[in-house]
Amino acid sequence: MLIVMDKNATAAQIDQVVRTIEVRGFTARPIPGGDRVSIGILNNAGPVDPALFAGLPGVKDAIPVTRPYKLVSREIQPADTLIRVGKVTIGQGHLTIMGGPCAIEGEAPAMAIAEQVKAAGGQIFRGGAFKPRTSPYTFQGLGLEGLKIMAKIRERFDMPVVTEVMDGETFDQVEEYADIVQIGTRNMQNFSLLKRAGQSRRPVMLKRGMSATLEEWLMAAEYILAGGNSNVILCERGVRTFVRHSRNTLDLSVVPVILKESHLPIIVDPSHAAGVRDQVLPLSRAAVAAGAHGLMVEVHHQPDQALSDGAQSLYPEQFITLCGHARRMHAMLQE
Amino acid sequence: MLIVMDKNATAAQIDQVVRTIEVRGFTARPIPGGDRVSIGILNNAGPVDPALFAGLPGVKDAIPVTRPYKLVSREIQPADTLIRVGKVTIGQGHLTIMGGPCAIEGEAPAMAIAEQVKAAGGQIFRGGAFKPRTSPYTFQGLGLEGLKIMAKIRERFDMPVVTEVMDGETFDQVEEYADIVQIGTRNMQNFSLLKRAGQSRRPVMLKRGMSATLEEWLMAAEYILAGGNSNVILCERGVRTFVRHSRNTLDLSVVPVILKESHLPIIVDPSHAAGVRDQVLPLSRAAVAAGAHGLMVEVHHQPDQALSDGAQSLYPEQFITLCGHARRMHAMLQE
Amino acid sequence: MLIVMDKNATAAQIDQVVRTIEVRGFTARPIPGGDRVSIGILNNAGPVDPALFAGLPGVKDAIPVTRPYKLVSREIQPADTLIRVGKVTIGQGHLTIMGGPCAIEGEAPAMAIAEQVKAAGGQIFRGGAFKPRTSPYTFQGLGLEGLKIMAKIRERFDMPVVTEVMDGETFDQVEEYADIVQIGTRNMQNFSLLKRAGQSRRPVMLKRGMSATLEEWLMAAEYILAGGNSNVILCERGVRTFVRHSRNTLDLSVVPVILKESHLPIIVDPSHAAGVRDQVLPLSRAAVAAGAHGLMVEVHHQPDQALSDGAQSLYPEQFITLCGHARRMHAMLQE
Amino acid sequence: MLIVMDKNATAAQIDQVVRTIEVRGFTARPIPGGDRVSIGILNNAGPVDPALFAGLPGVKDAIPVTRPYKLVSREIQPADTLIRVGKVTIGQGHLTIMGGPCAIEGEAPAMAIAEQVKAAGGQIFRGGAFKPRTSPYTFQGLGLEGLKIMAKIRERFDMPVVTEVMDGETFDQVEEYADIVQIGTRNMQNFSLLKRAGQSRRPVMLKRGMSATLEEWLMAAEYILAGGNSNVILCERGVRTFVRHSRNTLDLSVVPVILKESHLPIIVDPSHAAGVRDQVLPLSRAAVAAGAHGLMVEVHHQPDQALSDGAQSLYPEQFITLCGHARRMHAMLQE
Repeated sequence: MLIVMDKNATAAQIDQVVRTIEVRGFTARPIPGGDRVSIGILNNAGPVDPALFAGLPGVKDAIPVTRPYKLVSREIQPADTLIRVGKVTIGQGHLTIMGGPCAIEGEAPAMAIAEQVKAAGGQIFRGGAFKPRTSPYTFQGLGLEGLKIMAKIRERFDMPVVTEVMDGETFDQVEEYADIVQIGTRNMQNFSLLKRAGQSRRPVMLKRGMSATLEEWLMAAEYILAGGNSNVILCERGVRTFVRHSRNTLDLSVVPVILKESHLPIIVDPSHAAGVRDQVLPLSRAAVAAGAHGLMVEVHHQPDQALSDGAQSLYPEQFITLCGHARRMHAMLQE
Repeated sequence: MLIVMDKNATAAQIDQVVRTIEVRGFTARPIPGGDRVSIGILNNAGPVDPALFAGLPGVKDAIPVTRPYKLVSREIQPADTLIRVGKVTIGQGHLTIMGGPCAIEGEAPAMAIAEQVKAAGGQIFRGGAFKPRTSPYTFQGLGLEGLKIMAKIRERFDMPVVTEVMDGETFDQVEEYADIVQIGTRNMQNFSLLKRAGQSRRPVMLKRGMSATLEEWLMAAEYILAGGNSNVILCERGVRTFVRHSRNTLDLSVVPVILKESHLPIIVDPSHAAGVRDQVLPLSRAAVAAGAHGLMVEVHHQPDQALSDGAQSLYPEQFITLCGHARRMHAMLQE
Repeated sequence: MLIVMDKNATAAQIDQVVRTIEVRGFTARPIPGGDRVSIGILNNAGPVDPALFAGLPGVKDAIPVTRPYKLVSREIQPADTLIRVGKVTIGQGHLTIMGGPCAIEGEAPAMAIAEQVKAAGGQIFRGGAFKPRTSPYTFQGLGLEGLKIMAKIRERFDMPVVTEVMDGETFDQVEEYADIVQIGTRNMQNFSLLKRAGQSRRPVMLKRGMSATLEEWLMAAEYILAGGNSNVILCERGVRTFVRHSRNTLDLSVVPVILKESHLPIIVDPSHAAGVRDQVLPLSRAAVAAGAHGLMVEVHHQPDQALSDGAQSLYPEQFITLCGHARRMHAMLQE
Repeated sequence: MLIVMDKNATAAQIDQVVRTIEVRGFTARPIPGGDRVSIGILNNAGPVDPALFAGLPGVKDAIPVTRPYKLVSREIQPADTLIRVGKVTIGQGHLTIMGGPCAIEGEAPAMAIAEQVKAAGGQIFRGGAFKPRTSPYTFQGLGLEGLKIMAKIRERFDMPVVTEVMDGETFDQVEEYADIVQIGTRNMQNFSLLKRAGQSRRPVMLKRGMSATLEEWLMAAEYILAGGNSNVILCERGVRTFVRHSRNTLDLSVVPVILKESHLPIIVDPSHAAGVRDQVLPLSRAAVAAGAHGLMVEVHHQPDQALSDGAQSLYPEQFITLCGHARRMHAMLQE
């Protein structure tokens, strides 16, 4: 943290800042500059809250210098985290494609979709049993029944499954049936849920919040690692901007930044970013080209009859094309 | 919902859209235009998902026409909702000022602050017992002990108290001690929590999500009303934008829009929007001038020693000024 | 500027940064910290481009410490700038209300509107002669004819007039007829136009760009002051965000920040922020309550027949109400 | 345009809307729905301003149905526009790579860079002679001298050149020396400049505004086409969002949308989106993978000594890698 003083800050004001630093056990290092004084804070174990200084008299700015995250940081752990789920490995050097419907709507359709996901080369089956829906009046998912259908899919097709958990009450259930537990966009800063995920025996896929900064996202992952679970997969799914031609704006610059800042795997969900089918294939290719470790894509055997998110779900033949493009692109980058 | 077809959409494509509408039991009404056909959807009880149509061949656009919310809508209930908590009324015609620290840090400081909030004319005491913190390494609140301190404050100062609930597991506890249960920004779309709040016997203050649209916010409130609890207070607290001179951008245009669209009370939290003390007084006045029914403001007797959010907490004498300005402005608008 | 090095930066990398600083004639001051080195840059006359360092090996971050603006800064000129136009003074201690149509559509309607603006207590008449329109197919303004009508209004009603200039070619013309020359949102970073404005004998009203940061806006004003014209009025008119219930999001926190950072007057245009009439009165009050030095509001005697922006133009009787509320609020704040 | 009435709108209010439509020569078609009336507007030649209706009593919403752009639309011209500049073709089926420094800093460095751009396989040389700079105190470009250097580069290396024009006063000059005239982000809605560009004999590269919607961007292109110049190249360069880990957020979803909506070529500038060198290669690959027709990339032979934007400029060897990846990826997509 660097505290920048006003040009005309008094010695008393500078002293007050120094005291505020030292009272917390940190070291204050005043840096006289050309026309104003700055004060560095050293020897702080964790992050320092800029808010402690922003309001003091004579203070112009309080600028964080170091990152607040630790366990997720590549500075702490330089080696890439690789996550193994069944026979699938997720992380640097691998391209993991997850496909399936937005929501599990019943056993027959789920099986039909899973068969096509598997045939196209998808490695992990995704599907929602508990669905976070904007409206209380729309389909909320099959719940436990949906989880059981997913378990059957794992067995029949020898494919791990990933599904979302929405609260502490149903965490045990989800954990029992799923191979990867997903924390959704709207719960990225549900800290109670993150703490529970930190105690889970399952890998956790943590989707980026709708308007989460890189730092907030990594700090949410930090909650899980700090709780004892180091198997976290990050998932970029678009952020909210002024843009209206796609549902969200896929932020692919986050991929190289995550690769640099963190050792955790990062995958991309182009379906929720796009909101419409036409954009899913080009955005999937772009995500792989940007260096993502995988894709999570919505696929449905009859998208125009899906109970949710039909417009963004691929037809099976589109998913085959996507898998082909993605694998060839990834192979090119591995050369 | 209005489905707009491409200029060169075929009759078969138009038929498919009509069938997709009718198979759901709605009425399709094709509207031949100058150079393209549009198709209106009528007799749908609830909202229709545009995603059902956006991906069909020949469809250019699917435009929602009516609002998806019902119970929160002024079209359904024209009369303003007034919420009574102890001797305080919240809603149209009243100006309710809530003040207190970000977090309850102990009994003595909480009592000291409450005394000053009361003396300045604050009507409701706010304070965090369970704190949602970006970092797992910072102060997480006193929990149950904090709730008990708040209960003492209610009794000693005859002031209702409001505090945040973070999960279903601690909802009963919070409900037992608080007069108003707050659902925070990061949990605005924690649908499990919203459902639990719908069964609460307490009024719920629902803060707007960091990047929530008006519609998403009202739909989150709709979850609570649909669950049976009609005592919801909306709280605008700034949204995330590209702006960096304040922590969030306070969106005051939402106040007149809420007043028009909904019968629920709307208050404003300038402290979290600003992030720095200097902006809190002008933004508080602006909120009242825009028509808000109340303010929720962070006050601390020693802001530079607060464990969280000290930079945005007012000194007691600033809170006195704020209450004075706000009351005079509200009185002027009531004339 | 503070250069933060990686934890494992080598001595050679630190040396390269120091050389890069010194080669420009600045002073480098390394600051050894707990677990990494930072390097302060001192004795730089103007701002330093962070881009010079962000890409060097071993550099983690380059953090600007001081502001890049000078002439507009209150650190350079503590006293408020007051701008006199005819008998009207704009700046601290005054509330200046400007009203008029979006575009001048002809002499008769302009006169009719001006009469009502004057009667309601408006002090300056606004109106567009050259109109920046999103579409090439919509009304582009009357040009020189519009300017002449505005000149007549000034004479008949003894009211200064403000109108927009769109390019260097027509600057002389606008300058001849207008009392205040406006640079619009879409031209805030049209640096050729800003340089020309720096040589103007007229006060310039500089609207904030659609997504301009505080710093970019003040730097645009700095261009005008650096060119020799110190009579600049800033005008906040809403910024582009994800929000859809208003055309733009009025950023009122910018008002106290400008009051603190700069000596220039700041006014607010609620009409373009809102985009709809209903929000104009509450946002006008909010702007005055936040401390703005004035308002610029669209008024039309027959809004539903206006050639542009009719939906956001007030009816004359609404403008009377607005002037009344604004003046009383301002008087309260002056007490 | 569809006008949606309030549920309780009166017959008189509906009549007023109908009259407002018909007085403009359009056809009004009321559509009685389940619980409210909507009114379609037909037979309008150009776009209708929603603002005409949004403020009328009884009107709930005014929803644009058709696009306001014409000449740029694929509905009007289904065939892709191909633009030939010297021996280079820009548009569908081609991948055009443009490289060069942010600013022309002198003949020797420009020649050195051009030689490396050519050798790496770049087809067009980019460089700034007139530079739009945020600060009046930083390097503003060499102007005419810079243009002359670019002309020499064209001759020596047989490479077309692209450079930015900032105002009408210097348009003739730029047009004389450049093969492609660039209109920058900050001037995307400088309508005077767009009109001048419409009369140019040169192809125009139109960069997307910092917060321009798809529609605004295409309407800016429409100005150029409506002026008589149909050779417009669109260039996505990132938009402003809350994100801070890159300078802007590259919006790659705009690529497939432009390909669908318009016949104009679309290229991507990853350098200005990223702001830092590390992100340029992954974002370049992503842009090609998303379907862009080309790239514009900043390259410098000594980036750490560049007078502007050094941090985002590639080293020559990085540009070689980029050209290789981009060409192989494009080839794969063409199969």
